[in-house]
Amino acid sequence: MTTISVDAMGGDEGPGVVIGGASLALTRHPDLSFVFFGDEAIVAPLIDADPRLKERARLIHTDVAVSMDAKPSQALRTGRYKSSMWKALEAVKTGEADVAVSAGNTGALMAMSKFCLRTFPGVQRPAIAAIWPTRRGESVVLDVGANVGAEAGQLVEFAILGGAMAKALFGLERPTVGLLNIGIEEVKGLEAVREAGQALREANHPEIDYRGFVEGTDIGKGTVDVVVTEGFSGNIALKTAEGTARQIGDYLRAVMSASLRAKLGYVFAAPAFAALKRKMDPRRSNGGVFLGLNGTVIKSHGGTDPIGFAAALDLAYDMARNNLQGKVAEGVAALERLRPAVSQAEAVE
Amino acid sequence: MTTISVDAMGGDEGPGVVIGGASLALTRHPDLSFVFFGDEAIVAPLIDADPRLKERARLIHTDVAVSMDAKPSQALRTGRYKSSMWKALEAVKTGEADVAVSAGNTGALMAMSKFCLRTFPGVQRPAIAAIWPTRRGESVVLDVGANVGAEAGQLVEFAILGGAMAKALFGLERPTVGLLNIGIEEVKGLEAVREAGQALREANHPEIDYRGFVEGTDIGKGTVDVVVTEGFSGNIALKTAEGTARQIGDYLRAVMSASLRAKLGYVFAAPAFAALKRKMDPRRSNGGVFLGLNGTVIKSHGGTDPIGFAAALDLAYDMARNNLQGKVAEGVAALERLRPAVSQAEAVE
Repeated sequence: MTTISVDAMGGDEGPGVVIGGASLALTRHPDLSFVFFGDEAIVAPLIDADPRLKERARLIHTDVAVSMDAKPSQALRTGRYKSSMWKALEAVKTGEADVAVSAGNTGALMAMSKFCLRTFPGVQRPAIAAIWPTRRGESVVLDVGANVGAEAGQLVEFAILGGAMAKALFGLERPTVGLLNIGIEEVKGLEAVREAGQALREANHPEIDYRGFVEGTDIGKGTVDVVVTEGFSGNIALKTAEGTARQIGDYLRAVMSASLRAKLGYVFAAPAFAALKRKMDPRRSNGGVFLGLNGTVIKSHGGTDPIGFAAALDLAYDMARNNLQGKVAEGVAALERLRPAVSQAEAVE
Repeated sequence: MTTISVDAMGGDEGPGVVIGGASLALTRHPDLSFVFFGDEAIVAPLIDADPRLKERARLIHTDVAVSMDAKPSQALRTGRYKSSMWKALEAVKTGEADVAVSAGNTGALMAMSKFCLRTFPGVQRPAIAAIWPTRRGESVVLDVGANVGAEAGQLVEFAILGGAMAKALFGLERPTVGLLNIGIEEVKGLEAVREAGQALREANHPEIDYRGFVEGTDIGKGTVDVVVTEGFSGNIALKTAEGTARQIGDYLRAVMSASLRAKLGYVFAAPAFAALKRKMDPRRSNGGVFLGLNGTVIKSHGGTDPIGFAAALDLAYDMARNNLQGKVAEGVAALERLRPAVSQAEAVE
């Protein structure tokens, strides 16, 4: 049995989306159980309306909800120890739940996660990993915004953390890893990226297969299973891809309604367009994974709907079932053993 | 009359693409004239084959061509003063040409451009600007890879340079400018980006209308006319968007050929798909503009064809006709007058 603790108050739309998503996820994974944290007056009737969910759910009342636009420091001040977000994280800390999910404010969730769960021993900074649909399938991309900037050692850690997630998510033995850079020649790019590349090459880490630098075009190609970068460029890459997909969707709609002939073609090809829409649906890859903490936390997009929230719950389920934390521990332990070699590589650089 | 100096030896495919592109561009702009630099034995027959082009072109023989994979230092060592690339730049320096175009090695072209043309007085570092198709039309995005990292003062300069290009390209009086960041709240992002934002807001520059931070999704939306970022994240954003567009194109082809019904729809909607293909054609926005030098240099994609190279020549024509250099001078002069205010803003931060 897998238990997910859920911040029922997170997200732009609130508990309706969260509980609706839980109902959907339960249909797919009948062995799931939930601990919801939130305002009983609002959440209880929603759970009561689904008897099947009610049987698999506990609701714990909380008075405080973290606002979507609170700064992390403010959220910690007003929401620590008592908010629905904090309580969901605490359930992972105490072992009551296997993984926590929230559609709340990203900065607040990361700040609280660090405070409540603490950084995994041997990791300097947690990262947020996204699942990126590619031409080959899916890849893991991190960091997509937990940190701005990263030193070589942190990029090496991100490679290990992303590798652990790719193992848990795709069932791979030794996922391929690339460092995002602006050219494939060794001379180019940020010094930290070059240093991390040298360290990863020399370390020859047993859990990941380092393949060198990759460029922006390689992400969508699926050249590697794990794409590693610092959070500023990772976040910009992610949002630029989202924007480009939406832009092309707009173009497509515009040309398909511009003439009678195109409209007729659209009618014939309607099932094909529906398939394309499903494939490009951002809800399918909803859920950022917080990596490098003593416990797994999944961040759902704040503006999603029940289908999207269910995808984040599916991801949480997979991460717990496939023992993400155990795989992180293996990766970090191997890194620790290799650390002298890594440090030496950095010193030589 | 506008004269373009052209490195006839640049690009993956060499002179055939370059001369073919020049023929196309001349059809659209009959007042164009060209000075080609390259190996006479290869280039002269290509020009001779098009009598109309021959009438508007001079060819100057060069023995040396910069290789596509030469490092910038190596290219300078072997190609300075004598390569087709150098000679094309020198023609701008001497005033023989209004603008130079090359499809050669980007790093070498930037290194030679700096060495030959020198940085514009008052500018710290040149940048490469791309034209980005958006839902609203087109935007200028810079820097897309000339520099890795940028301090606040350099980002402010990029804003001025990009503004000058938007004025020349779109005929705007006071283009809107945004700083690329990972959140719209003032608290987020890199310190340099925050400082640049404060300086731009306080400067209230007469030539640009600063609109604050924008995110990756805003680029494709066309939220602002000019998107400013440092070269690492700018290059990653550009290539990620390219990769995403190709990926969606692949999806679309796959679904439209997956069933007889979809294929039939495709036949009906063929003109619509052709229009979409034209709209998404990367050749249409081929050409990076080197900004902040004493002269305009356009970098064509190395792997393009005559249609793409002609687009880079069209861009060169527009930049020369619309007096890009004059607009850069105006922007930098206004910045110089405001500089005390800008420095103060940085000091306060």
